[in-house]
Amino acid sequence: MLLTDPHPAPAAALTYHGGRADAAARLYPDAPAPWLDLSTGINPFAWDGADVPLAALRALPSPAELDALRYAAAAAFDAKETAITALPGSEIGLRALAGLALPRPWHVVAPSYRTHVAALPGAATIGVAAVGAVAHGGGTLLLANPNNPDGRCWPAARLLELAQALAERGGVLVVDEAFADSVAGASVLPLLARDDRVLVFRSFGKFFGLAGVRLGFAAGGAALVGALAARLGSWPVSTAALRIGTAAYRDTAWIAATRERLVTASAALDAVLAAHDLAPTGACPLFRLVERQDAPLLFERLARAGILLRPFNEAPERLRIGLPGDAAALARLDAALGDR
Amino acid sequence: MLLTDPHPAPAAALTYHGGRADAAARLYPDAPAPWLDLSTGINPFAWDGADVPLAALRALPSPAELDALRYAAAAAFDAKETAITALPGSEIGLRALAGLALPRPWHVVAPSYRTHVAALPGAATIGVAAVGAVAHGGGTLLLANPNNPDGRCWPAARLLELAQALAERGGVLVVDEAFADSVAGASVLPLLARDDRVLVFRSFGKFFGLAGVRLGFAAGGAALVGALAARLGSWPVSTAALRIGTAAYRDTAWIAATRERLVTASAALDAVLAAHDLAPTGACPLFRLVERQDAPLLFERLARAGILLRPFNEAPERLRIGLPGDAAALARLDAALGDR
Repeated sequence: MLLTDPHPAPAAALTYHGGRADAAARLYPDAPAPWLDLSTGINPFAWDGADVPLAALRALPSPAELDALRYAAAAAFDAKETAITALPGSEIGLRALAGLALPRPWHVVAPSYRTHVAALPGAATIGVAAVGAVAHGGGTLLLANPNNPDGRCWPAARLLELAQALAERGGVLVVDEAFADSVAGASVLPLLARDDRVLVFRSFGKFFGLAGVRLGFAAGGAALVGALAARLGSWPVSTAALRIGTAAYRDTAWIAATRERLVTASAALDAVLAAHDLAPTGACPLFRLVERQDAPLLFERLARAGILLRPFNEAPERLRIGLPGDAAALARLDAALGDR
Repeated sequence: MLLTDPHPAPAAALTYHGGRADAAARLYPDAPAPWLDLSTGINPFAWDGADVPLAALRALPSPAELDALRYAAAAAFDAKETAITALPGSEIGLRALAGLALPRPWHVVAPSYRTHVAALPGAATIGVAAVGAVAHGGGTLLLANPNNPDGRCWPAARLLELAQALAERGGVLVVDEAFADSVAGASVLPLLARDDRVLVFRSFGKFFGLAGVRLGFAAGGAALVGALAARLGSWPVSTAALRIGTAAYRDTAWIAATRERLVTASAALDAVLAAHDLAPTGACPLFRLVERQDAPLLFERLARAGILLRPFNEAPERLRIGLPGDAAALARLDAALGDR
């Protein structure tokens, strides 16, 4: 039986996406188990609610429940006037971009999430400094806010300026806000009107700590959102995602408390990293970036201690570090960093 | 707040897709509740197994679990040599076809599932009689086996001939096998080799009675399956779908017993329909098609009795009737058909 999949071989898996503690365990069989997986930006303090029983999954997902999810998400995003559609994960939404006949030329800001380059095949990659000039040339510009892996944040008002510059030449701004829930005021969505030429991607799993649900959204200008929705059809997400997502986005007390908790936890991570002469950067509390010449050695040392960070093939001096989920995990990281 | 979605208004919902008992209840507010929804081809005898707890959805879906699902599904499909990838529902897979640069011209066999025309925009629709001649012309040919809504079955060997004729001109055969699990020997997958220019879509939710899971597959030639998998990325389906799907496809005893049960249930439905001078057609036990000039009146009469069938805008003489889930449901249908 021949089976294909889009995943790389185990040895390359760690630099392809985060979250591959299984591959790490095969590469470092002598590391102490269980692994402490700090290789993703997924909130370790997951939203908790009712399980969705199997019997609830018998019927097709209902349009009424889909509408309830969209309204709940739009309210949580403070998206007052934009269109919104649900996605089975923002990853699939990004990969549908290539089919939307977006205006050329295509530009992707780098470094960022690796799917961006695949989402707009043939796009030119540009640095942050070139964004203003590129926007005045029109076409399609894709960037992430907050950015991954460096946690860089664009002011929302600046993104609106870029969108207006692009729109003057018939262009489109695409913003990947996969990590925006964790940073109050980060999103451009509250500033948008229904005809704006902006498409925003949101992710449910990262902030709510439920990446296995596969739920995301595209929101923004009605024409762009409508075109993306048509690529997915009438049942874009599972009934489980409808129910979990609706309840979670309505849980405004949890959302507010979690934003504070993430700030506290990222400050505690910063303190541990600083104590070991690591200078973390980034304004997204779900992860930190460390840049140093000996990053590959540091990755290796922590891996042998059963702690997985996120290395980058194309930038070996970088390591992304996710939030430890409790004091014991933070102490384990602290001890491993001190054990030279 | 402006929200868009791809769904039609309630009045048109009943002829757009099946499964809209909510819209029917608004259109027929005096009908007795609960509605008996016979408007879909979803198995009313759903597979039953363990619920997937919310805590299992915290991590990203694991590549190992995705591989387990793909192997389990391939074994259930008796797909010995083909590639296979998981989809968040066959609907999204069909709608990704347009991005695969499939060879032209494009032909879609009609009447069939309404998404087929949207999946290959601009495709010419052809009748069953033209399929052989069209295949010898090359390009891409999309058809369903068993077909929906008429339940027509193509012999698998005939599909292989069509695929070979297409391939001689560089063409591709796409087979929507969404309902194939219910008909032993229907699938072309066991006949395929890894380099065949055939792409087959499978659906989990119909045969297993769990349409809310959103799970499907694309299987067939490695190049075609690989191209489709790349459109979806590393996490095509939820962890819930991975666990439910793997357990269900491994449940070979349930699969065999359910095939028999569906044949028995469809024979019982046929007997009731025949007793009321309705001549059902179709070889797929998950639904039957009735064609008569007074079909709109029959639809209306049953709707007023709280029984939803599937009408078709483009063919008002047709009604598709799904399987009643128990003797009481069948008796209710029988009584409503007799009450003139």
